[in-house]
Amino acid sequence: MLMDDMGWGDLGVFGHPAKETPNLDKMAAEGLLLPDFYSANPLCSPSRAALLTGRLPIRNGFYSDNAHARNAYTPQTIVGGIPDEEILFPELLQKTGYTNKIIGKWHLGQQAQYHPLLHGFDEWFGAPNCHFGPFDDKSQPNIPVYRNAEMIGRYYEEFEITKNGESNLTQMYTQEATDFIYRLSSDKQPFLLYWAVDATHDPLYASKKFLGTSQRGLYGDAMRELDWGVGEILKALETAQVLDNTLVIFSSDNGAATYAKTGGGSNGPFLCGKETTLEGGMREPTIAYWPGKIKPGVSHQLGSLMDIFTTTLDLAGVELPKDRIIDGVNLAPVLFGNESIIDRPIFYYRGDELMAVRVQDYKAHLWTWSNSLEEYHRGTDFCPGQDVANLTNHDQQNHTAQPILIHLGRDPGEKFHISPSSAEYKQMMPRILEVVNKHHSEMKKGKPQLNYCDSSVMNWAPPGCEKMNKCLPIPKSKEYKCTWTH
Amino acid sequence: MLMDDMGWGDLGVFGHPAKETPNLDKMAAEGLLLPDFYSANPLCSPSRAALLTGRLPIRNGFYSDNAHARNAYTPQTIVGGIPDEEILFPELLQKTGYTNKIIGKWHLGQQAQYHPLLHGFDEWFGAPNCHFGPFDDKSQPNIPVYRNAEMIGRYYEEFEITKNGESNLTQMYTQEATDFIYRLSSDKQPFLLYWAVDATHDPLYASKKFLGTSQRGLYGDAMRELDWGVGEILKALETAQVLDNTLVIFSSDNGAATYAKTGGGSNGPFLCGKETTLEGGMREPTIAYWPGKIKPGVSHQLGSLMDIFTTTLDLAGVELPKDRIIDGVNLAPVLFGNESIIDRPIFYYRGDELMAVRVQDYKAHLWTWSNSLEEYHRGTDFCPGQDVANLTNHDQQNHTAQPILIHLGRDPGEKFHISPSSAEYKQMMPRILEVVNKHHSEMKKGKPQLNYCDSSVMNWAPPGCEKMNKCLPIPKSKEYKCTWTH
Repeated sequence: MLMDDMGWGDLGVFGHPAKETPNLDKMAAEGLLLPDFYSANPLCSPSRAALLTGRLPIRNGFYSDNAHARNAYTPQTIVGGIPDEEILFPELLQKTGYTNKIIGKWHLGQQAQYHPLLHGFDEWFGAPNCHFGPFDDKSQPNIPVYRNAEMIGRYYEEFEITKNGESNLTQMYTQEATDFIYRLSSDKQPFLLYWAVDATHDPLYASKKFLGTSQRGLYGDAMRELDWGVGEILKALETAQVLDNTLVIFSSDNGAATYAKTGGGSNGPFLCGKETTLEGGMREPTIAYWPGKIKPGVSHQLGSLMDIFTTTLDLAGVELPKDRIIDGVNLAPVLFGNESIIDRPIFYYRGDELMAVRVQDYKAHLWTWSNSLEEYHRGTDFCPGQDVANLTNHDQQNHTAQPILIHLGRDPGEKFHISPSSAEYKQMMPRILEVVNKHHSEMKKGKPQLNYCDSSVMNWAPPGCEKMNKCLPIPKSKEYKCTWTH
Repeated sequence: MLMDDMGWGDLGVFGHPAKETPNLDKMAAEGLLLPDFYSANPLCSPSRAALLTGRLPIRNGFYSDNAHARNAYTPQTIVGGIPDEEILFPELLQKTGYTNKIIGKWHLGQQAQYHPLLHGFDEWFGAPNCHFGPFDDKSQPNIPVYRNAEMIGRYYEEFEITKNGESNLTQMYTQEATDFIYRLSSDKQPFLLYWAVDATHDPLYASKKFLGTSQRGLYGDAMRELDWGVGEILKALETAQVLDNTLVIFSSDNGAATYAKTGGGSNGPFLCGKETTLEGGMREPTIAYWPGKIKPGVSHQLGSLMDIFTTTLDLAGVELPKDRIIDGVNLAPVLFGNESIIDRPIFYYRGDELMAVRVQDYKAHLWTWSNSLEEYHRGTDFCPGQDVANLTNHDQQNHTAQPILIHLGRDPGEKFHISPSSAEYKQMMPRILEVVNKHHSEMKKGKPQLNYCDSSVMNWAPPGCEKMNKCLPIPKSKEYKCTWTH
């Protein structure tokens, strides 16, 4: 269950004062809470590509080097997508007999060759891009919604999202999930369900039943409906009698969008949010759940969405690919209590740059940047109300010669730098830099997939549009370098 | 159980990423969590005086008007203390047969006439002031520790707190508590236990067993030991078979001391901390616990430490004093599920000034101030890493003509002001100002107790010092106006 732009602090169990997530809080109480779990990137497309490939975006190509340290993603003008050479874990599961379904947002490329059914999934109900819109059909078509290989409508057309945020999408996504679970379970077939819902991503939405029910406004309405959906899915697993044979993982793709002001989520005590390599940008609200197999509790294991690749394959008895570096770690020994902590670093990338690294409780910032002064003055603030010298700066700062060191145990909010002249700094920094140097020396960057844009690749005439009479004329191709401003 | 400088965000259940409070989290899971609970003041002495009298410090005299909107407390030079005219709820409980004990910090005046045994308590083990020190005996004596009406030693002398933070005080306070519970329960006597421990107040301490065990450093060690103590007390209530007949309330006296850098606690997603009337200064981590009587859950009832006065007396069947205004509200109907929410405002005072008021989910700031620029430049920062225009300002700003409006449901971090030109502002502000005007019109200020200081009133020769040969020469009296800098 991968949420979209949901923050670490949005769940009751992670401290949101509204405490409006009873199903997730119950799931956490009965499962393993992972407060130190990270996405591989502070933005959606690279984060999702990393989850599915078990590899950092810098390896799988989900980055841009058009400019230094820029976040890039897959708007509908993007030319690239997930390369065929990349192995997604559903592909490997498929080979051992799993039936795989993705429900919701794909975001690994909107051109047909990048679609989920060519990359390990058997079924798809959802969309290739964000549900931005409504568009005008002339300069931009609305995003198509797919049922498997063909579109069955578009957002704002067949799939309504009203101006005041009413939409039945979370209801549909939940129904799709429980239907799939019942169907596969009754056939006694192994399955992978990738529930990639997006109600907490701008533009926010909730169904009529949930609109106006949260003390948090529309964002909270969306949260409450997703929490309801999680409850429905767990109930379906129980009713279908597969709960004792199913690993459920709940997480989010990146930090809450703090720039959305009160329309965004909460990153709890952490600094900044989405788009940044501060903790608010990449720390994810994560729960692992498997009653009878995973003991209820809390683990401070450093985890990454990429670990889902490795852990899942281990559980399914599938060997890892040997021809490439896999960044994901097998968390099974920790989940099942056989090992307390696996010592592994967390790498915080922004585009083509390694911005920071975490080793145990220490985080070293090698580069820092919130966004440019121009962007900031235009009203985009990734750190509203927050101001920490040399961390929330509006110029790109290179600290590689003397990284900024934070102890995340004593200082989860990254407010207090450890002095470079301290014994603690002198003891830890060489160990961290060793990890960094090893990482750099072994790095083989993938070909960047997010460099080029072109209006002709937009969702003008997706597969299936003929049947619906929804094909739009495709403009002439004119490739250009995408502009990534932050 | 009243903690000292513990923040809303310090408990696992309130979202601290370290999740090192298993006993409190269990207490919360089995009790009623109150995320919208407040102290009556962002500083210790006034907060404690308000708790015990059920009245705002501006009424009970625990404030100073030496300067505008200044936090004052009871250092050992303070001349004033709790006036005899004030009625403390233990006094009223005593009359109906309760035996009352305070363990830990009193802070309602250190001169003998202000001591707990003259103000409703039958027993005392603890100290009148903060455990600052060690002092030099010439300009300042160390703070005495009392057993009932007489001192039995002093901090840093008979009661050790080492430089590295080792002390057995929490162990002692816990032992005192469980002993008291067993003794009174075996006699089938009704009792009030006021467990006012202070390990999370600077200077932090923990016993050897807990030192170095937290990922949060010394503050976390102190937290872990207090959490252990809470567990021991609940266990004692169970073993003594009085758990089904005892209301337990856990809270803290004010927000975490954010200026203590990594040595202070966490206020979670809230702005600033102790000393301020921003949420971080007065929102308290509160749990009400009474298995079988209070249903497990969460209540967004706006609560105040002053409500403990009113609620406790109601439960004991004692009538409230009729000759004075009591600010505390009887929360019993909410605790026991007979009423969902009692509509009541929260008043945020700093010294002699009403700084802000909360009505339902709306908070209006009438005055704002973090601290002076001089203090700030000397290194005292009440809002480290935080910067919100017109809220974290270093000059006292008067917003009474156009208060700053925040919706705490959508914006618990107080980052986004609601525009005065919005319909929402125009609808809510008159309702809030009505509450403010009513409050002001009914206000009869108490005589300020925290205006005068004098070296001669310090703990030179406390009762009992003769027996111990620990009396120090008392200097000549010279009263002066205390200086309250923030």
